[in-house]
Amino acid sequence: MPQQPADPTEPAVPHRRSWPLEPAPLVIDGVEINRWDRQVLLEARAGGVSTLHATCAVWEDARETLRALGAWRRRFADHGDLITPVRGTDDIERAHAQGRTGVMLGFQNTSPFEDDIELVETFHRIDVRCAQLTYNVQNLVGGSCFEPSDSGLSRFGEAIVAEMNRLGMLVDCSHVGEWTTRDAIEASRDPIALTHANPRWFCDSPRNKSSETLKALAARGGVIGCTLYPLFIGGTDTPREAFCQMIADLVEEIGLDHVAIGTDLTRGQPDADLGWLRDGRWRRPDPEQRLSWPEWPAWFRSAADFPALAEGLLEVGLDEAAIRKVLGENWLRLLGQVVGP
Amino acid sequence: MPQQPADPTEPAVPHRRSWPLEPAPLVIDGVEINRWDRQVLLEARAGGVSTLHATCAVWEDARETLRALGAWRRRFADHGDLITPVRGTDDIERAHAQGRTGVMLGFQNTSPFEDDIELVETFHRIDVRCAQLTYNVQNLVGGSCFEPSDSGLSRFGEAIVAEMNRLGMLVDCSHVGEWTTRDAIEASRDPIALTHANPRWFCDSPRNKSSETLKALAARGGVIGCTLYPLFIGGTDTPREAFCQMIADLVEEIGLDHVAIGTDLTRGQPDADLGWLRDGRWRRPDPEQRLSWPEWPAWFRSAADFPALAEGLLEVGLDEAAIRKVLGENWLRLLGQVVGP
Repeated sequence: MPQQPADPTEPAVPHRRSWPLEPAPLVIDGVEINRWDRQVLLEARAGGVSTLHATCAVWEDARETLRALGAWRRRFADHGDLITPVRGTDDIERAHAQGRTGVMLGFQNTSPFEDDIELVETFHRIDVRCAQLTYNVQNLVGGSCFEPSDSGLSRFGEAIVAEMNRLGMLVDCSHVGEWTTRDAIEASRDPIALTHANPRWFCDSPRNKSSETLKALAARGGVIGCTLYPLFIGGTDTPREAFCQMIADLVEEIGLDHVAIGTDLTRGQPDADLGWLRDGRWRRPDPEQRLSWPEWPAWFRSAADFPALAEGLLEVGLDEAAIRKVLGENWLRLLGQVVGP
Repeated sequence: MPQQPADPTEPAVPHRRSWPLEPAPLVIDGVEINRWDRQVLLEARAGGVSTLHATCAVWEDARETLRALGAWRRRFADHGDLITPVRGTDDIERAHAQGRTGVMLGFQNTSPFEDDIELVETFHRIDVRCAQLTYNVQNLVGGSCFEPSDSGLSRFGEAIVAEMNRLGMLVDCSHVGEWTTRDAIEASRDPIALTHANPRWFCDSPRNKSSETLKALAARGGVIGCTLYPLFIGGTDTPREAFCQMIADLVEEIGLDHVAIGTDLTRGQPDADLGWLRDGRWRRPDPEQRLSWPEWPAWFRSAADFPALAEGLLEVGLDEAAIRKVLGENWLRLLGQVVGP
């Protein structure tokens, strides 16, 4: 489908920058958790994003998640010139060829499955293709990276992973505790993902993963999407070169086929919703604390900056073929293997 | 309120046996999970049960639990000659004096609280006075005794225990993993309960507790309700003497003030519901397996057999004062401390 002609009522978007690669690479963003509006979708187009994985649940239960998925059906209808649903890799390649952004629906929690093994298939039937096993707290499935003690994968967790394998749903362990992550890597028939995390040696946060875990992930064919979220790269002032050098070093450490990008972009999210996204309903907000979203680095403020990221990767010495893998082809290969065509 | 006159339409109940103690003791049953009908309530009266703790949720979420609690309001209205709601120890003593059975509402899971700290107060406001932290699988709060690995109390679990303490809701760890149980004993400001469990040395099951845990429970003022559930006493054929001797030995081990009864009676539960009660929705039933409830020992088939249990306790050498503590006064003391008058 051709791009629609410029419309003076369109919101302002960053200038579409040109790629340092020809032809433009197939770009897949491992996760974005924006407050979705047309502006954000235009930014994805400006950055040449072929497909992004959109978070539809963080704390939500089944019913609440059905509403979020319904909203995506309306978005696909309302913004069909910009976006198209992704159910497998054929959709990703078609979106890329058409100059649209594919959207793969997924969860950053297994909370939508509640306590019901049957709900995995239910959500798969309505196009959910990825679920993170836990978000910021322990749940029925396993331990979170923010818990003082990590249970490992529970019996329900093993059942959930097997069911996701059966259906073709990608297992994500980004916010998951290290032990549970290692259990999931072993328990899963298919390789798994860290859609948005970094190596612990780059930035020491519980949200980033140890080298042992990253090597285990890669040994089973998994992929890590390196995240741009400011708190997990060492802050807003971290230079592009440092982030890109981390990617180059990680390619050395775990292999080129296992490193990708998962920005975790939070475009348009108001400060008022940060408390919900961090803590859900499990504890009361501290009335003293005024939460605000961190500022993103000047060199990556939105999905429109993907071409600039490619420049940074060139500058640290990755060749074009390597950059294409990191920007999209590694996710495409993993999704082909797990989710299918 | 006087007992209503005998009614020929009343279901048949076991003959009311006389107590070997005068006056009849105040009897509190730590937990029952019957399919509730008038027959079961008549059995409780026949056994002189002053108060029983009725399970209103095992896997249910908030909405499903609201329905179970609504059903109890109808039962209190329909069977007011036999039962009366218990919100504190004054209600228990009043029920005993009136010759009715008080019913304290509680949960065998924190699933009704879902992921919402505010729901603890909501359920307390509608008379829930006890919640077991986990049932048969790991949840957001902690680890279950049936998990291969026990997380201990999670951050949400600590928040839930503190909230239950604030409101006056008894923490129960009967199905909870040993490590989470020990965490809860330490984290809780108030003493906690094992409403239905036995010492591991009496019957080697993950549902029974180690001596270390039982001593820690008692050291903080907690109480264990020894259960009659056949699988956790060593089977249907376990003689009354063995069960009663276990109680006498446990009194020696952890102190007279910390030993009570929590039958876990499952009266009227059909075999068809056993799968739900054991596994909920977390795994699919095995179509090969025909589940059936275990047969209860001949000497304890229903709550009508409480007087016979008192006989057994006399026979193993407990004196009357000790038997009164075990049959009810220890629960009364604990509930006075935790739940209040």
